[in-house]
Amino acid sequence: MSSEFGKNLRVSVFGESHGTGIGVVVNGFPAGEAVDPEQLQRFLARRAPGQSRLTTARKEADIPEFLSGIRDNVLTGSPFAAVIRNTNQRSGDYKGFEDTPRPSHADYTAAVKWQGAADMRGGGHFSGRLTAPLCVAGGIALQILARKGVYVGAHLSNVGGIRDDKFPLYPTSELFNKLTSSNFPVLNAQAGAAMQTAIQNAASEGDSVGAAIECAVIGLPAGLGDPMFDGVESLLASALFGIPGVKGVSFGSGFDCVSMRGSAHNDPFMIKDGRVRTETNNSGGIQGGITNGMPLILQVGMKPTASIASMQKTVSLSRMEETEIEIHGRHDPCIAIRAVPVVEAVTALVLLDLLIGG
Amino acid sequence: MSSEFGKNLRVSVFGESHGTGIGVVVNGFPAGEAVDPEQLQRFLARRAPGQSRLTTARKEADIPEFLSGIRDNVLTGSPFAAVIRNTNQRSGDYKGFEDTPRPSHADYTAAVKWQGAADMRGGGHFSGRLTAPLCVAGGIALQILARKGVYVGAHLSNVGGIRDDKFPLYPTSELFNKLTSSNFPVLNAQAGAAMQTAIQNAASEGDSVGAAIECAVIGLPAGLGDPMFDGVESLLASALFGIPGVKGVSFGSGFDCVSMRGSAHNDPFMIKDGRVRTETNNSGGIQGGITNGMPLILQVGMKPTASIASMQKTVSLSRMEETEIEIHGRHDPCIAIRAVPVVEAVTALVLLDLLIGG
Amino acid sequence: MSSEFGKNLRVSVFGESHGTGIGVVVNGFPAGEAVDPEQLQRFLARRAPGQSRLTTARKEADIPEFLSGIRDNVLTGSPFAAVIRNTNQRSGDYKGFEDTPRPSHADYTAAVKWQGAADMRGGGHFSGRLTAPLCVAGGIALQILARKGVYVGAHLSNVGGIRDDKFPLYPTSELFNKLTSSNFPVLNAQAGAAMQTAIQNAASEGDSVGAAIECAVIGLPAGLGDPMFDGVESLLASALFGIPGVKGVSFGSGFDCVSMRGSAHNDPFMIKDGRVRTETNNSGGIQGGITNGMPLILQVGMKPTASIASMQKTVSLSRMEETEIEIHGRHDPCIAIRAVPVVEAVTALVLLDLLIGG
Amino acid sequence: MSSEFGKNLRVSVFGESHGTGIGVVVNGFPAGEAVDPEQLQRFLARRAPGQSRLTTARKEADIPEFLSGIRDNVLTGSPFAAVIRNTNQRSGDYKGFEDTPRPSHADYTAAVKWQGAADMRGGGHFSGRLTAPLCVAGGIALQILARKGVYVGAHLSNVGGIRDDKFPLYPTSELFNKLTSSNFPVLNAQAGAAMQTAIQNAASEGDSVGAAIECAVIGLPAGLGDPMFDGVESLLASALFGIPGVKGVSFGSGFDCVSMRGSAHNDPFMIKDGRVRTETNNSGGIQGGITNGMPLILQVGMKPTASIASMQKTVSLSRMEETEIEIHGRHDPCIAIRAVPVVEAVTALVLLDLLIGG
Repeated sequence: MSSEFGKNLRVSVFGESHGTGIGVVVNGFPAGEAVDPEQLQRFLARRAPGQSRLTTARKEADIPEFLSGIRDNVLTGSPFAAVIRNTNQRSGDYKGFEDTPRPSHADYTAAVKWQGAADMRGGGHFSGRLTAPLCVAGGIALQILARKGVYVGAHLSNVGGIRDDKFPLYPTSELFNKLTSSNFPVLNAQAGAAMQTAIQNAASEGDSVGAAIECAVIGLPAGLGDPMFDGVESLLASALFGIPGVKGVSFGSGFDCVSMRGSAHNDPFMIKDGRVRTETNNSGGIQGGITNGMPLILQVGMKPTASIASMQKTVSLSRMEETEIEIHGRHDPCIAIRAVPVVEAVTALVLLDLLIGG
Repeated sequence: MSSEFGKNLRVSVFGESHGTGIGVVVNGFPAGEAVDPEQLQRFLARRAPGQSRLTTARKEADIPEFLSGIRDNVLTGSPFAAVIRNTNQRSGDYKGFEDTPRPSHADYTAAVKWQGAADMRGGGHFSGRLTAPLCVAGGIALQILARKGVYVGAHLSNVGGIRDDKFPLYPTSELFNKLTSSNFPVLNAQAGAAMQTAIQNAASEGDSVGAAIECAVIGLPAGLGDPMFDGVESLLASALFGIPGVKGVSFGSGFDCVSMRGSAHNDPFMIKDGRVRTETNNSGGIQGGITNGMPLILQVGMKPTASIASMQKTVSLSRMEETEIEIHGRHDPCIAIRAVPVVEAVTALVLLDLLIGG
Repeated sequence: MSSEFGKNLRVSVFGESHGTGIGVVVNGFPAGEAVDPEQLQRFLARRAPGQSRLTTARKEADIPEFLSGIRDNVLTGSPFAAVIRNTNQRSGDYKGFEDTPRPSHADYTAAVKWQGAADMRGGGHFSGRLTAPLCVAGGIALQILARKGVYVGAHLSNVGGIRDDKFPLYPTSELFNKLTSSNFPVLNAQAGAAMQTAIQNAASEGDSVGAAIECAVIGLPAGLGDPMFDGVESLLASALFGIPGVKGVSFGSGFDCVSMRGSAHNDPFMIKDGRVRTETNNSGGIQGGITNGMPLILQVGMKPTASIASMQKTVSLSRMEETEIEIHGRHDPCIAIRAVPVVEAVTALVLLDLLIGG
Repeated sequence: MSSEFGKNLRVSVFGESHGTGIGVVVNGFPAGEAVDPEQLQRFLARRAPGQSRLTTARKEADIPEFLSGIRDNVLTGSPFAAVIRNTNQRSGDYKGFEDTPRPSHADYTAAVKWQGAADMRGGGHFSGRLTAPLCVAGGIALQILARKGVYVGAHLSNVGGIRDDKFPLYPTSELFNKLTSSNFPVLNAQAGAAMQTAIQNAASEGDSVGAAIECAVIGLPAGLGDPMFDGVESLLASALFGIPGVKGVSFGSGFDCVSMRGSAHNDPFMIKDGRVRTETNNSGGIQGGITNGMPLILQVGMKPTASIASMQKTVSLSRMEETEIEIHGRHDPCIAIRAVPVVEAVTALVLLDLLIGG
């Protein structure tokens, strides 16, 4: 198994939810780039639990310790490693699922694959908690990208069927900053209010809702990526599906293209400010796997949180008979809220990899 | 650049639409497995153009010559190589796009990336024609998988907004055979008729339509794949986005999960015929990146054919001014029809890779 | 950059000599395998400094902390991570080499590559100290291999021109245990005494000596490895050259084959105890990149320690003029002594990777 | 299995000695680079058999057909593919070894690994013939490198114990040209004459001799490569051990370092013509895995040809009893002669990969 991705920038995530620590090793961060630890901590805070009524009340002290690859807040060129200690486990909340797997969690598949050896407390290596080290790496990547004039932003584009506006044709870093400073990042405040009500309603019924995230990247040069299997879509999708709960990844028009005709879907070329641009951006900034200089646009579909309060059907693996379970503990009613910075982090890491490989 | 994918089964596709030949090299095909060349040819015929009114009238003699890795129709264990000669090029149809890139094709990005060196006649290495060698490799993978009791099937699940039925909870190889023998593979004949009308209407207007493909795999053991970035979704999505025209890839409930609640989305475990199963399959047969023994279900969204008959806006790269082009030649009004076997092929290659890796 | 190796078993080493910590992440350790921490600590002690007059007097508390991938001394299947804190740095010993690179160290190349950003105190990421985490991973691999009947052993086969005996045609695990329990592992005690004298003589003159290590692996099945670039020699050599100070890697007859005739070099096949064996083993247990069931034999040539006491010529990079330096601090007069377990560790990791990939 | 190497330049070799064809696919050749086919053919001729009394009399029409990735002798940027047809097989010469494996060939290991499915006629995929496509790729890499001011040269440094001179501290491209134009490339003509006599003597007795090849690369910038497992030595060794018959690979002082003291082995830095240089080059141009701007120096040890005329002991695998075989056919008495350009080719490909990756 390999919890790694990347080519010139290799990201390796380790840890189990209730083990000693979780962390990340990155090979290939460019030497000499500064890291602003406070900016990084603010980024991590967006992913951390306990920020609002809509996210779990768990408190995690997600403060990474840097082990190597950085000195005096400057990347040294050798492998970067950071660890986050696991301090606030309440394993009692998670006992008892090794025999009775939680529906739509990885308990059953881990049991089949690792024959009982896995440390699945709190979801083990499959836990959403593993996105914290991913955000450490991605938060650094975002800082490096910004220095190159490349900015990444994301918002909740659909929660439980309630749609936010789409990104405009040319999103700006100001717009991204506005999203970043909100703890419920949407473009349309009314839609956002409706979404929050939907989440609260689900939460009050012990239920959860799914959501979609739209992510944009501006400032990318044309020419990144390669045809076929090393296309930008392949690289991004491969990494994004590594985020727990992702059920779909699409680019530009995404699955909407299915209902479109070519005459409407094709992006006519035009000249704007002396540069080649397209009038529309159904291509999502990628043509033939290669960036075309337009904003890169992608969508991620995230399932509703699998941990819900109601009694659920499951089986006892030891007795091979049907039974029921009830999942206690504190859970996000909509995992996508905290996944917004994770999508930004993963997207940033993939694009920095491409920029390094030049 | 790297037109390759896979780990234990490495697939490398080469060729340009109007060059000498296109082909594929596969490292890792298991030694001793037989290849039925007639069955392979029938599979290739499903992708080949010129089969019906709905596909392009071009005739391509897609008969692969095996160069290595096979003797007397048995795989030898050393690298498999096959080449298909390009014989029926009508380059005249494609002249003139190096300076005036076709909208939503790779002409512009190739020009930026390769600075005029690319052989972009007929789309060059970006051409849908490159899916022919992919189908040679995938067609062999399908034969090997079938011998292991693993079957792959696919249908047009949505054409231009007209929806086919979804696969039943437990698709069968008989159902797949029925789809395979049709040159317009759908589950619901009425929907299929409406789709064909929609395609013909678009074609008669010199236009094209987008479509979605649903693909299922049955017979997979539980336990394939790994958490995070080597999850089954990551591996499949990475390869599937290598198919020209794919805008989205999703699994199980896909983007529909966005509008669902956890109580409806979770797949309750049950015992069926002495095996652990789930009552629903929103997980698409994958939990935590690992197969759970249920049918694997995925969706691919394909954009409408970019080559349409109407006059389109573009730019002259040399003069940096706006202009128009008209694309002649023969083109599929709906590329997804011929992409159905390509999705099957790529899916089969990724899964055989996982099965080999154990 | 990528301080990683392996395919199914991915080993990633991080850290700088005088940074916060050094460590290793391993993806792919088989779930359910036990780790004996005391046996591991004994293995690490063989690499640790300060064991005898012939190794540096530095004391390093090389006690790894396990962060993930292991619970109750059993591997869980998810990424294994371990960290060793750097506690005993005496950076003063290493000051001043950023401008005046030490001959035959990596100071100059790191300065060119990372433009001054590198943390090169104590050799930084290039330090022999980085072999400690490698031995943590390798020590675990050795325990897993032993349970599969595969044993790895090594000895100092040549120190400063004084040759030890070669391994017999069929080394045994008993012989390996004898070598392991010695802190100067040789087969011929007389040769060993002469080697130690040579090392002490060099040390007393502020100088150092080179050495060769012969390593053997028994119990391997025939059929591991692949032709050409994934041959066992390629995989082992690639990893072994990652050990600081290695100048050459060879297999079986090694460079002696240059002076031999085919009639003497060919290994005749024979039947022994019902198994196919060879009468001699110039092939080193590998033919066509694939193991043949005979003991695997390899040699590693290690240069004399670059840190010597005498005044040496160098240049000032800032002033671009010639100057001299004197290296203080405590250094091994023969790095190969402590490298013996490192060679075993790396060899074990590569072979476990192959066995897992099967 | 994977007959591939490289990261940014991916080389994939396919084919079996007596199959339909052998060939190579290269991903990553830079677009726009010209290929001189006559110069390439001259390079291939150096590897081809039948040039002198010292090489086999077999005639192979090693004229590659370019399938893709090149148009009008300019690389297009998409995957390069070339095939060489197998036309002159005399399979009769090779019959009968599937049951009675030839000593020190891959017959036995292939039989174990592929259970009889392998096409081992003429050595199958393990044949030295597979170095022809490798030379097609490498010959192109050499042309590209030369345009960047990087030159690769090699000579027979030791044949059967007779030593040639070593390369001077600063070899020149003129020296390389002189070696290239000889069909017995040595620096010292007298040594060369003695070597040829030794080879003829062995040949007349139906025997063969081993040899070493020294290879140098000039014009490389400092800073290529990475610490540890992606060091230049690791990358080169991994690829060079893919050449059939290689038993050892070393750099700079190589295994001679074993008998040296640090005071003699260390390379003092100096300023020469305004650049940082070293007075000696025991480091072989590489320190800490990274090039230091001095000539890169490596050695390859090649075993004596395994195919010799005398009766040899082997076993019958079907009857599991000892027997004898006699190998007919035409064989090089010293495979290293024709391996000289192969070593150059592989070295060039690895270094071009590093230069592309930046």
